[in-house]
Amino acid sequence: MFHDPPRFPRGFRTASRNVGLKPSAKDLAVFVSEVDAAAAAVFTRNHFPGAPVIVGREIIRRGVLRAIVVNSKVSNVATGERGLAHVHRMATAAARALGTSPDRVLVSSTGVIGVPLPIEKIERGLDGIAAELVDDPRVGAEGIMTTDSHPKALSLGVGDATITWVAKGSGMIEPNMATMLSYIMTDAAIPAAELDRLLREVVDVSFNMLSVDTDTSTSDTCVILANGMAGPIDRDEFRTALTAGSLRMTEMLARDGEGATKLLRATVRGAANATEARRIAKSIVNSPLVKTMVHGADPNVGRLLMAIGKCFECTIRVDATEAWINGQNVVHRGQRTTFDEAAVRTALATDTTDILVVLGVGDGEATAFGCDLSTGYISENAAYYSS
Amino acid sequence: MFHDPPRFPRGFRTASRNVGLKPSAKDLAVFVSEVDAAAAAVFTRNHFPGAPVIVGREIIRRGVLRAIVVNSKVSNVATGERGLAHVHRMATAAARALGTSPDRVLVSSTGVIGVPLPIEKIERGLDGIAAELVDDPRVGAEGIMTTDSHPKALSLGVGDATITWVAKGSGMIEPNMATMLSYIMTDAAIPAAELDRLLREVVDVSFNMLSVDTDTSTSDTCVILANGMAGPIDRDEFRTALTAGSLRMTEMLARDGEGATKLLRATVRGAANATEARRIAKSIVNSPLVKTMVHGADPNVGRLLMAIGKCFECTIRVDATEAWINGQNVVHRGQRTTFDEAAVRTALATDTTDILVVLGVGDGEATAFGCDLSTGYISENAAYYSS
Repeated sequence: MFHDPPRFPRGFRTASRNVGLKPSAKDLAVFVSEVDAAAAAVFTRNHFPGAPVIVGREIIRRGVLRAIVVNSKVSNVATGERGLAHVHRMATAAARALGTSPDRVLVSSTGVIGVPLPIEKIERGLDGIAAELVDDPRVGAEGIMTTDSHPKALSLGVGDATITWVAKGSGMIEPNMATMLSYIMTDAAIPAAELDRLLREVVDVSFNMLSVDTDTSTSDTCVILANGMAGPIDRDEFRTALTAGSLRMTEMLARDGEGATKLLRATVRGAANATEARRIAKSIVNSPLVKTMVHGADPNVGRLLMAIGKCFECTIRVDATEAWINGQNVVHRGQRTTFDEAAVRTALATDTTDILVVLGVGDGEATAFGCDLSTGYISENAAYYSS
Repeated sequence: MFHDPPRFPRGFRTASRNVGLKPSAKDLAVFVSEVDAAAAAVFTRNHFPGAPVIVGREIIRRGVLRAIVVNSKVSNVATGERGLAHVHRMATAAARALGTSPDRVLVSSTGVIGVPLPIEKIERGLDGIAAELVDDPRVGAEGIMTTDSHPKALSLGVGDATITWVAKGSGMIEPNMATMLSYIMTDAAIPAAELDRLLREVVDVSFNMLSVDTDTSTSDTCVILANGMAGPIDRDEFRTALTAGSLRMTEMLARDGEGATKLLRATVRGAANATEARRIAKSIVNSPLVKTMVHGADPNVGRLLMAIGKCFECTIRVDATEAWINGQNVVHRGQRTTFDEAAVRTALATDTTDILVVLGVGDGEATAFGCDLSTGYISENAAYYSS
């Protein structure tokens, strides 16, 4: 179903460069459609959004984009009026280089918070970039990587159209805050208002259910561009494909979280409602004691009960609670079963840990995506950011 | 103000032993008053409370205790009817050994979840323990230690009375879930109903503002006994002393959190209300990225803004937000200041990090207590619990 290697929908191309923000790694990328695309986006809910997010919220209201320009290393957050001016200069430089207008360019920045963007380097760096545009989404993915261990791009066909995802995940930036940037491009023809509705619906069950460390970046951005070059498409098929690819990308990001060695997937069924299911699933993937249990492949299942039980405001019936780890029933009627410890240890030693909790109090269901907690997380994040 | 070494109020004594739950370290302690004491307690809010918590909630309703008996290594959580029976047997054995009735004995257990309590070992181990009672609270503190790096006991005089705290903190149990057990004893004469009110008021600003890793144990217990042997006392003085000692013990527990090398104290002022101040202060001490920043003595102050800003439901005015790290102003009007990085690094390298945030939107104020996040947390918690 997914293309290997990933490819672009009709009319999309990308380029990436080192413009001197980092010593040598790529630190700037553009994504561009050859015609105007309907567009929608969701942004971080953090109260201290980066300047690109503040401007992006305005830009996206028109529902039309031609290009995205992204730099890493400096996030342009908590930079005041000057930060906003830098976003406009970056959009203007990208628009000039790519032959469009600044109000059709979405800007993203990711990296250190609170320091000014080296805007001249970016302006100079965008000059002539159109000559380097290629049709391989991995080139753009490479350009937005920070400490991601590999570039992240996916694509799949749906009817006559293609959907492509390019994202960066929860690697730190030199080392800094984990930021999720996700760019979705399609040649399906879908009006902006409908894209917006679809995107929110899909993000709600995919990227919004991802947590590496409970910390919400000030720069998180997920945007979708639909340039229509493949014409109209069956909406249900499109929704299904958009969901499948977004879930796949969410898992890719979780598995490559800072210091992560495993994907941790927690599904909660039978909760009082979907909200409670989401809260409990998130509590499980966010619990440091569950995360270290998964890292150590240690079937200390009391920690799982603890992580469920600390959702004080949720409806829990102790004697109705059941849980499985990779198919092994470890909790029955709220009590630890006499499960085969060796079998659970073996199951936990694989690269994916699936926790299933059935609460038996209603119909609410949700899945959350996270990763184990390793010493790699500490060593990446305790280092000086400026060195 | 605090006694050195700590001592007991009139009429209180303790004993501790190894009864064979652990290879050689002490694993059982009793605390006993020679007369009935008014008593009050608060317990974990986890939906999967241990059997001792379920029984303790009933016992404490009478408002009278003579003794506390505590074992470590096995928590007696998620053990069903058998677990409840074991609590009653443990209380009966302690009552027999100490010359009181089971309904005057509070039981605590801390350790692995979901495995049966070795009740026979505990019953045999309590036999004859009265002969070993001593008046040094550190002996009892030693008996309830798990991976705490040192026994935790405090006392101070207030008028003619004494208040003594004995607690275990956020060390893991072989290694298991962090559990907070805190026993407060005084010879002041205070009725149970008033003790209950005072305890809740004080716990609210002290132990409830402590977080090592966001994970809420299924066994947390804080109990106060007032045996009245020193007669009545000025209530305001008592409240002040009870608060001071509980804050001191909270800091002691935070500083000795799993893998911790530093105390992290976050004070929020000027929040919309006290609830929002508490939420934001907790968000700061719970943020893995703030905790690793403190561990690495890295003045990456963007993480502080992130941790404030991710309290979506709180009122934040970006341009009214100010922040200090150990007295250095690092955020002014929502923007990173051009602070002296060397000075902030030096300040962060001390054994206590004080973060002060002033929000400028109201009068809400709160302080939360936590610790840094080190590789020690991972190595303690990723090991097999059963080895």
